[in-house]
Formats: sequence, C-alpha cells, structure tokens
Amino acid sequence: MCELLGMSANVPTDICFSFSGLMQRGGGTGPHRDGWGIAFYEGKGLRSFHDPEPSVDSQIANLIKEHPIKSNVVISHIRQANVGEVNLANTHPFTRELWGFIWTFAHNGQLDKALFDLPLTHYHPVGTTDSEYAFCWLLGEIRNAFPERPDDLVALQTFIQERCDQLRALGVFNMLLTESTWLFAYCSSKLAWITRKAPFGEASLTDCELTVDFYKETTPNDIVTVITTVPLTENEVWTKLEPGEMITFADGIPV
Amino acid sequence: MCELLGMSANVPTDICFSFSGLMQRGGGTGPHRDGWGIAFYEGKGLRSFHDPEPSVDSQIANLIKEHPIKSNVVISHIRQANVGEVNLANTHPFTRELWGFIWTFAHNGQLDKALFDLPLTHYHPVGTTDSEYAFCWLLGEIRNAFPERPDDLVALQTFIQERCDQLRALGVFNMLLTESTWLFAYCSSKLAWITRKAPFGEASLTDCELTVDFYKETTPNDIVTVITTVPLTENEVWTKLEPGEMITFADGIPV
Repeated sequence: MCELLGMSANVPTDICFSFSGLMQRGGGTGPHRDGWGIAFYEGKGLRSFHDPEPSVDSQIANLIKEHPIKSNVVISHIRQANVGEVNLANTHPFTRELWGFIWTFAHNGQLDKALFDLPLTHYHPVGTTDSEYAFCWLLGEIRNAFPERPDDLVALQTFIQERCDQLRALGVFNMLLTESTWLFAYCSSKLAWITRKAPFGEASLTDCELTVDFYKETTPNDIVTVITTVPLTENEVWTKLEPGEMITFADGIPV
Repeated sequence: MCELLGMSANVPTDICFSFSGLMQRGGGTGPHRDGWGIAFYEGKGLRSFHDPEPSVDSQIANLIKEHPIKSNVVISHIRQANVGEVNLANTHPFTRELWGFIWTFAHNGQLDKALFDLPLTHYHPVGTTDSEYAFCWLLGEIRNAFPERPDDLVALQTFIQERCDQLRALGVFNMLLTESTWLFAYCSSKLAWITRKAPFGEASLTDCELTVDFYKETTPNDIVTVITTVPLTENEVWTKLEPGEMITFADGIPV
C-alpha cells in the first residue's frame, strides 16, 4: 500500500512540516520504500518531483523539506509497491491535461485485474500500475462527460464520486485528485483531514520529533486543510472520511 | 529569446557538465533570468524540474548540478520571456501524453500571433506562451495523423518536419521534442550538436571555468550527443544545423 498527503490553502503555504512527517514513513517509521512524489500548484502552473528511491534517503526530499515551496494545492504520495515494478514511470502522482488544466492524481489501495477491462479513450498509461490505469480511465470519463470545464461544480463532483464508487467496487481506492483549484478527496478505507485556522496552536508530528507553532508561521486570515491516509500529528483532532465519502476542498475549506 | 539543451545517449548518462554551463546563462553570463526547466527520462518514466526563478540563483538547479541524475534523453530550457509573463505555467519544457508516452517539448524563438489561429484538438495550453500553444497544436496534429505509435519512424519524422516548417513560417522556431527514445531537433535559426564517443578527451565550458576529462567519466562503448542553441564548449567542434533541417537522435546518434 501507500500513503497520501494533500493540502488545500487560501494563501500560498509551504508543506514542509507535514512533508517532514510523511517522508519518515518512506523507509524510516514506515515501509513505503518504493519511491515518492509531490506536486505543487502555483496558480495553474505545476511543479512536481518524482523519485523512485526511498524518501527517507532522498536528497531531493531533503531539499523540499528545507526549501519551502509555497503553494495553494499540493498532492504527495509515498509508495509501497504492489502492482507494477519500482521505477520512475510507476511513481505517483500522475498528471494529464484536460481543459488546459494539469490534473494530478495519487492513489492508495489496490484494484482487481478487472480494472484493466475498463475502456480507455483519451488517456493511456505510461507505466504498469493499476493506479495510473484507473486515473487514465477516470479522466477520460470526465472528459467525455464534460468536454469543457463546467461552471457547475456539483455536477462534476457527483460524476467523479460515481466513477470512484465504480473503482472502489474493484478493491481499495483512496484517492486525491486536483486540477489546481479543487482538491477531490475520495475515501475507500482510510482518509482523514484537519483544517488549521486562527487561533493557531502548536502541532507535533507522530513520525519524528518536530513541533511547529503555526501561530508564528501564519497570518490570522490563513486557512489550510491537510488530508492524509494516516493522521500526521498526535495532539490534534483529525476528521475521518467514511467509506464512499468524497469531499472537495478549495481555498482551504470543504465546498 | 531562450536557450535549449538536449541530450541523447546510449547508456544512462548525467548531464551535470553541460547543465553547469547552461545554468550560468540564466542570469550569470547570459540574460535568461525568467525561469528554467529540465526533463530527464529513465525508460518511459520522466522526472522534470521547473523553476520560474533565475537558474544561476536556484537551489534546485544547484542540486541537479551536484546530484547526477543519469538519463538516456534530456531536454532543458532557460527562458528570457517574450510572449507570456514569468510564472510557473509558462516555464518550459512542456509535457503531454500521447500513445502512453510522455512527450516533452522546449522552444527557442518567437512566433507571429497568427499562430493562435491554428486549431487545437486534443491538447490545450495551461499557460499563455506561444511555445506551449505551438506544442499543443503540433502534438494534436501528430495524434490526428498517427492515432497509434507508428513502426515507421521515417513517416513520423517527415510529418513532424513538415509541421515544424509551418511553424517556422510564423517566426523563429528552434525546437527540441521527444517521447523518451527519439529526440527530434528542428532548426530555424540556431541549433548545434556534438557527439562524444571513444576516444574521449577533455572539454572546457565557455561559460564558467570547468573542464572535464570524459575519458575518466565514461566507458569505451558510451555514445552521447549534446544539442544546444549556442555551443557550450570552446575546444570542441560542433556541427550546426541548417535552417529548416531536422535531425532525429536515438541512443546517442542521428537515425
């Protein structure tokens, strides 16, 4: 299996604190040694980092921990391979363009081989994971149903959730998906989130000895939601999603 | 304008030496302060780095110079903006998927506004540059003509060159394009290449005091071609492409 980390914020925010905890699980406190990746949006622009090496040893991961990249939407993933060998092409998150937006996708779980019978239309996988195949199918479905970007988010949300239900019927499908403003979080078995806003307090990571006082790092107007498969802090209350539940976040809050 | 750097090799090879020279031109020896990017293929997998900051100051660029990433195909770009503001979405190289391959594109030059009348089909730009628009049009044309990956490289080459001729008629269009194995280099006004193979010798960068003895860095079977808008070394003979000429490289040699 793998671990997911997502962030939605109303101001460009760095994810160094949460990323520091997650990276420990990539061969340190957790067994997810089979690569990691992270995608940062700045407006519609995307910069992503992918590495098939364990995150706990990675020089690139260290750079990201120490060199704050401020972003409104982030998706990160650390991998413990099941379907597909360990290589760069199989390293999440995956990206494809639709409507002139770069969509980013990461998946926790494993899907039945029947997945590969779902017909692909516009998008085709580069690697051999079930995850990338599921993404190509899902985004192709979205493209067929919404050839142009809809004004009506509710219709899009409903459509995505129905297609995710189809994928969940094939196994375990916890997912983070975004096109730069909306962050879709779909839960199959485990996904939890927390919104941090004023009055900010301290948070302590579960996976390493690191405490941050967000009061010192933020302004009173900042709103930041973090979503993850397993909560990253030990002194805060995280809200779990129910199986089959999807929440869409924008500007740091559920919409 | 901008500068381009490409590499094709028959074994995974790092590009630290050439990249060190190019990065100096991003605000050091050259005026290309408006961002930079680089894409490395490992098999069909791609890792890319994009930064809208000047490369000469960039921590990420420093990491790449000092942390060898070995790859068979590389495309890099440093930007001096003309069309489109300086931001992440406008930072080359650009990527899109076709046939289950991630295509990467970078452009030097500037195209007439008539470019934006060319019809887009499958691919749409995220940013506002003429370059990304040209890429979306070109790849859409390739997709329409070759819905599946052709066995016949010559037909594909001819098609791409004809479409590049169309773009060159709109201004200056020096281009590097790849899908992971073939590196297409099209010249409108400036592009030069060199193939290094045994017996290897020393090379000295033009843009900074750095000399490398490739004999110590390689095996006798290595073949590595480097392509760039302006030759990077002062003690080697580079071959210039003619305007309208396209060369396709694979495994380090022209095919």
